[in-house]
Amino acid sequence: MLGRTYDDQICSLARTLEVVGERWTLLIVRDALNGITRFEDFQASLDVARNTLADRLSLLVQYRVFDRVLYQERPERYEYRLTRRGRDLVTPIVAFIEWGDTHRPDPGGPPRRIEHAGCGGRVVARLYCTRCKELTKPEQIVSRPGRGRREVTTRQVTSRQVAAR
Amino acid sequence: MLGRTYDDQICSLARTLEVVGERWTLLIVRDALNGITRFEDFQASLDVARNTLADRLSLLVQYRVFDRVLYQERPERYEYRLTRRGRDLVTPIVAFIEWGDTHRPDPGGPPRRIEHAGCGGRVVARLYCTRCKELTKPEQIVSRPGRGRREVTTRQVTSRQVAAR
Repeated sequence: MLGRTYDDQICSLARTLEVVGERWTLLIVRDALNGITRFEDFQASLDVARNTLADRLSLLVQYRVFDRVLYQERPERYEYRLTRRGRDLVTPIVAFIEWGDTHRPDPGGPPRRIEHAGCGGRVVARLYCTRCKELTKPEQIVSRPGRGRREVTTRQVTSRQVAAR
Repeated sequence: MLGRTYDDQICSLARTLEVVGERWTLLIVRDALNGITRFEDFQASLDVARNTLADRLSLLVQYRVFDRVLYQERPERYEYRLTRRGRDLVTPIVAFIEWGDTHRPDPGGPPRRIEHAGCGGRVVARLYCTRCKELTKPEQIVSRPGRGRREVTTRQVTSRQVAAR
């Protein structure tokens, strides 16, 4: 479990990776965004071991990325529906897809194209300033301590004097 | 190695996860975006086992997310500098941080705040249509087969008739 490993990290990214950093979880969410809801369909799409898939779906239900919903009574069958929280993963997933298409391209071209419905334009993820209401270049951003910043005396980055290898 | 596990997945996301899906790798890149370049500083920030950190840095150099650069000759010392490819991970990382701050908030508030240099506005990741030149809502996007789409007869999602659990 990443959760235990990352417990000491006071970081919104680490908390996110507890949920989506396990192997396969983001690919499961990708498939769900493409409309897959059922265990057998995830399994067929991903070709992943059934126990691994069951573990990951269970984790994602526990973290409320999916709701597990009964859709048939005899025999009981469940499907996995993305919650709002799950659908909100679309932006980082689109950002990762673009990174892969740019920096590790498939020789045949992008296997999927993410389009704006109606207009058909290619959709990408971009940084955006909520004050200026404009796109922001990566070199124009800075990361500052936020309200939740606590003192972390034992683990903070010490200094450049420390011998580095 | 995720690489081998995901080999059968024809997907830009899977290819991205081969590089950044290993435990700790995204946290290492986050620290590098915050200015850390040296082994001991990564180690102090992450509190991760030294052999794990060495493995991850080696993987990230192999995938050209970092350049390993000699900065001192006696004794030999190297630092890790993000490449363009590495800096391009800022958008998915910002997207993940926002997801964490929204859906798994720290009780004390966001530990870091990502700001637009100069204006000080909060920077987020948003979907953006490259044709309309406008922000795009998640419900307005569709994923279609792209140029690199190949037939995948053995693993394609079969049907809703398959019993799903």
